[in-house]
Amino acid sequence: VPHPPIALSRQAARVSTSAIRDLLKLTSAGNVISLAGGLPALELLPGARIAQAAQGVLANPGALQYTETRGLPALIELIARREGVGAAQVVVTTGSQQALDLLARALLNPGDTVVVEAPAYPGALQVFQAAGARLAAVPLDGDGMDIGALEQLLAAGPTPALVHTVASFHNPQGVTMSAERRARLAELAERHGFLIVEDNPYGELWFDAPPPAPIPGERVIRLGSASKILAPALRTGWLTGPEPVCAAIERLKQAADLCGSALNHAIAAELLADEPWLAAHLAVLRTEYGARAKALTAALREEFDDALAVSDAAGGMFCWAQFRDGTDTSELLTAALEQGVAFVPGRAFGADGTDALDSSALDFSARMSFAHRDADTLREAAHRLRRAHSQAHTQL
Amino acid sequence: VPHPPIALSRQAARVSTSAIRDLLKLTSAGNVISLAGGLPALELLPGARIAQAAQGVLANPGALQYTETRGLPALIELIARREGVGAAQVVVTTGSQQALDLLARALLNPGDTVVVEAPAYPGALQVFQAAGARLAAVPLDGDGMDIGALEQLLAAGPTPALVHTVASFHNPQGVTMSAERRARLAELAERHGFLIVEDNPYGELWFDAPPPAPIPGERVIRLGSASKILAPALRTGWLTGPEPVCAAIERLKQAADLCGSALNHAIAAELLADEPWLAAHLAVLRTEYGARAKALTAALREEFDDALAVSDAAGGMFCWAQFRDGTDTSELLTAALEQGVAFVPGRAFGADGTDALDSSALDFSARMSFAHRDADTLREAAHRLRRAHSQAHTQL
Repeated sequence: VPHPPIALSRQAARVSTSAIRDLLKLTSAGNVISLAGGLPALELLPGARIAQAAQGVLANPGALQYTETRGLPALIELIARREGVGAAQVVVTTGSQQALDLLARALLNPGDTVVVEAPAYPGALQVFQAAGARLAAVPLDGDGMDIGALEQLLAAGPTPALVHTVASFHNPQGVTMSAERRARLAELAERHGFLIVEDNPYGELWFDAPPPAPIPGERVIRLGSASKILAPALRTGWLTGPEPVCAAIERLKQAADLCGSALNHAIAAELLADEPWLAAHLAVLRTEYGARAKALTAALREEFDDALAVSDAAGGMFCWAQFRDGTDTSELLTAALEQGVAFVPGRAFGADGTDALDSSALDFSARMSFAHRDADTLREAAHRLRRAHSQAHTQL
Repeated sequence: VPHPPIALSRQAARVSTSAIRDLLKLTSAGNVISLAGGLPALELLPGARIAQAAQGVLANPGALQYTETRGLPALIELIARREGVGAAQVVVTTGSQQALDLLARALLNPGDTVVVEAPAYPGALQVFQAAGARLAAVPLDGDGMDIGALEQLLAAGPTPALVHTVASFHNPQGVTMSAERRARLAELAERHGFLIVEDNPYGELWFDAPPPAPIPGERVIRLGSASKILAPALRTGWLTGPEPVCAAIERLKQAADLCGSALNHAIAAELLADEPWLAAHLAVLRTEYGARAKALTAALREEFDDALAVSDAAGGMFCWAQFRDGTDTSELLTAALEQGVAFVPGRAFGADGTDALDSSALDFSARMSFAHRDADTLREAAHRLRRAHSQAHTQL
């Protein structure tokens, strides 16, 4: 270690490591069945279609050059058309995670209030922590964010700069915000002057019916992603929002990484523009993920009976399970890893210091992804989890 | 525009747009010969080799999945070997621009002092502006950064957190820091406790002889990039540095974009590991860029004679030209665009409020890239520039 010692910034000190990414390292080796990550199924990634697109794209040397900071123009036009906005309202980002980071940098000063959901997507919590935001949390029920609780929070003040929501097939809780609540949220944004961040990586992954229309109004920044419907390695996400916000984000993205990959953008644009192929591919994902969701929830209910409340996943990649018998899921994880199964303990989805959040509910909860494994493996995972649960309770 | 209006952050207000990227938009259409961008030559990009690598890489579906935040392990190992450091001292980034941004986020608080070169790489200025740093500038001479001027600056205080240098084939001035100055800079870093950022995108692009060995010591963060030797669209850069810095940068990168593209990392790793191919490819780049540098400098000297001092480029992508006849290059650019040629006016390489910098020298200077065009086109560009110069002086 050099002397004098190296001092890290306040921002670096604020950001804690992602429990999920650390867990992924732990479970990537050996014979652990990991339900921890939000990873799409390898066998459902369209490798052949991407290889075919790559060959065509690489015939043009321009695909290897720098591209515009807002993204490859062909991809921007396509996204603008899909989202029903103008091209000046689109920025392509390195997954939707970079969209979150850039919008936080463009809009937040340290000390600003950001409303998150309870439980919340941990990657959003990390971004808002890095920005030095004060977090306030609003609980979810079966219809998504509890808008009444948000109204109470707004009445108590201060007015948040942003309200973040995964409105469709929530990560981690699986629920979807009703159309009526979406309209109420938009009205509150207009009245109080905050911006809504509608973080939507899972909207296309519905099983029986699509989610309600996006949150309406002018005060919405919407994040989309190709990671869950095409492939994570394309690192292609996007945001759409008010033009002044997009202009500020463009300047910050120049500083952050100059631009994305023209190669990856061109591949993503070709696949998203190939509508017959995309429709067939999405139909396969919906059917297969839907079957996996049913297999996992049924197996968990069979193994645990009344000891565990398991959500019905109607889309996305996750189910949310809450122990009714006082099992602390952070403690259970140790026994689970010994039995060869992993999940993410609920505590990873809570923000420190958000008093609106009943943190004890998180202690008894777990997020399990059904997307990455086939039905037989999911049933085996539920069985191993049951053994871990017995072992943990015997030791108590 | 929604009501109430949207408030941008202080960070967004601090970051100005990149003059170069704005100029690139202006010159991308039509018949302008642009010497403005730092773009590699399209016809020298190894498209066929990348297409071949892509096919092999895409046969493994794992290449389409998320990868580790620090980068694909195979690429990290390769970089660690090339740079002579441990794997825990490497982070792969979205070009070296992201490395700059992440290290600034990890190490700087608003108000901290950062020493930059005069002239400086504008992408570094943007990053340090975003971080809210106070900039101090040290001039360059033929042996790179003027270490005597740096010593005076250190004596006057405050101690900077970082000293940023493009030590080999400087952007924009083309000069290379001597071995003796590298050693003195390292001693100063040890004595005063600052960190050196050795930003090295061009080190491999030497024409007659390689640059001196990297800046020695424990207090160096070194940035490298595949953009100039393989292809920009792989968006593959890296940093090596002290382990605590890399650990903080990993946490911040989790928040910034989760991870880079496993696909692009795997392609870059295959090409960098293919030593015979890489050696032959670099030999072609060195020969061709060297010939282009000579063509541009000779043509500029022939067209302008004593009115223009043109640097001898010994590597990299840029030559630096200073008018001795009082021509303001920001004004010249208007006439140049009319004549169908573009360059970057010197003012783009200066930081506002850096009093150590003789800003009038920048007013008469221009950066011209010789890499992107063949020798005949470069001669035509010099000719058009001469016509623009005559036109501008006639109008005065």
